[in-house]
Amino acid sequence: MATQELQPFEQLGLIGCGLMGGSFALALKKAGLVKRVVGYSKSPSTTERARQMGVIDVEAPSALLAAAGADLVLLAVPVAATEATLKSIKHLVTPQMMIMDVGSTKVDVVQAARSALRDQIGSFVPAHPITGKEVAGVEHADVNLYQRAQVVLTPTERTLTAHLAKAQALWQALGCKVTAMSPEAHDSALATVSHLPHLLAFAMMQSVLNQPGADDMLSLAGPGFRDFTRIGAGDPKLWRDVLLANRDQVLAQSRQFRQALEQLEGLMQANDGQGLQDRLTLASAARAEWTMGGKRGS
Amino acid sequence: MATQELQPFEQLGLIGCGLMGGSFALALKKAGLVKRVVGYSKSPSTTERARQMGVIDVEAPSALLAAAGADLVLLAVPVAATEATLKSIKHLVTPQMMIMDVGSTKVDVVQAARSALRDQIGSFVPAHPITGKEVAGVEHADVNLYQRAQVVLTPTERTLTAHLAKAQALWQALGCKVTAMSPEAHDSALATVSHLPHLLAFAMMQSVLNQPGADDMLSLAGPGFRDFTRIGAGDPKLWRDVLLANRDQVLAQSRQFRQALEQLEGLMQANDGQGLQDRLTLASAARAEWTMGGKRGS
Repeated sequence: MATQELQPFEQLGLIGCGLMGGSFALALKKAGLVKRVVGYSKSPSTTERARQMGVIDVEAPSALLAAAGADLVLLAVPVAATEATLKSIKHLVTPQMMIMDVGSTKVDVVQAARSALRDQIGSFVPAHPITGKEVAGVEHADVNLYQRAQVVLTPTERTLTAHLAKAQALWQALGCKVTAMSPEAHDSALATVSHLPHLLAFAMMQSVLNQPGADDMLSLAGPGFRDFTRIGAGDPKLWRDVLLANRDQVLAQSRQFRQALEQLEGLMQANDGQGLQDRLTLASAARAEWTMGGKRGS
Repeated sequence: MATQELQPFEQLGLIGCGLMGGSFALALKKAGLVKRVVGYSKSPSTTERARQMGVIDVEAPSALLAAAGADLVLLAVPVAATEATLKSIKHLVTPQMMIMDVGSTKVDVVQAARSALRDQIGSFVPAHPITGKEVAGVEHADVNLYQRAQVVLTPTERTLTAHLAKAQALWQALGCKVTAMSPEAHDSALATVSHLPHLLAFAMMQSVLNQPGADDMLSLAGPGFRDFTRIGAGDPKLWRDVLLANRDQVLAQSRQFRQALEQLEGLMQANDGQGLQDRLTLASAARAEWTMGGKRGS
């Protein structure tokens, strides 16, 4: 994708003033890319908090009023709420308005957008910035959350070219690396490198809790456990939605994972030290060579 | 365990000058708790590097010569090498000499020590400092590696009380929290909170590598994947040894884990959003409440 000169937006309509939305508003303001931010959250106390923190300038009492007058709308709501939210703003959407989301799944989001926006689908640029924290809420909003993050855009065949170019320039201006792919390719890859690891971290915690003496065991856990399970503290509602939205891909990846695990277990059962070491060497080398945002070995 | 006043050691005999051993020597020196360090590593270039870095003061050409004249010996070798190493220094061991290890498994280490040291087993204080890095080697030795780490001591019924008290005081002086338990209780708990997570991280990497397009998928991985798989870059030989030494406990924990995973998968299959959310909420809350070194919720 080619980069274009980016003009500041007049008004960001922020729908969902949580961690992702709040951090986006802060970053956009810091970059001088927006004149004012009108925000709406389902919980009025969140909207109020966001205004007190300077994340938004004006509180809107509805998604529709947050979108009114905006040339940029960011949907930062649970993926399962995408369709209803877009429907609620639909009759204000114009071809001049650019709408983006930040959802972790894209097939379901694109389908929801098609169904909600119909003829206005061209205004929508589906986006997934691959970043986050294990804590939710506007109080954790971080102006630097998106810096050096990867952002995947999954445009539909009707997404307006001008909006796509503008979206790319916007994320780049926030310090992101932008790529584009189909919603299907996105969901398949993310099932592997994000959704499955979250499922496994939740399962790890669940497995400890299922056992007597869980507290004593947890008291012996060190830095390896800390990092391995960090994402297991993720927001249950958000991850419920992601795991269900991308269910088939996640289940397929979980089967792949269990095969790899059973292979390692088989080598342990057989006391096959060399075979086990060979497998661990491949895994360890691949992880040591990997760097975030770059291809392995590059 | 009661704390006692700790006198500096005259000579540390360091057998194994890698990450764990090298960091121990640096920390002991910084704390003013040792007058000189005589080091031995299987690879002469490692021993030389350790001396050049100031980790050890004198290079010894054998484990036996590293132990000669030492009032403290630290075994920082792969757990599978414990018995042979202790046998090689056995005839220099006196009741005045304190020997410790830093191995991640304890049932096998205690058994190896009994077999190697026989009547001198009282000098041996089995120790597991729960810390580490995903990188090996003396070049990564870190004077602060042990700070705020937990150390589990698993004394035998013949471990000399004076040595046990001294070991406790020593680790505390390095900034560690010290607890004591049986080797069996240690290995069971560590299988859950350390060995299994390592196995799962290795399996996760293996699962990605088994699939076409692994590099493309890895290029989309973000901070969640980075932290989840960090321990998957661990030293393959070290982890081969640990996984085999504690095989039965690790396999039992892996079965527990797969049950927890299959339960979550079942809820996804059934599209049971509430059930899934309930499970994720338990897991997430337990992880959010956990703090390293403290009991959950305390």
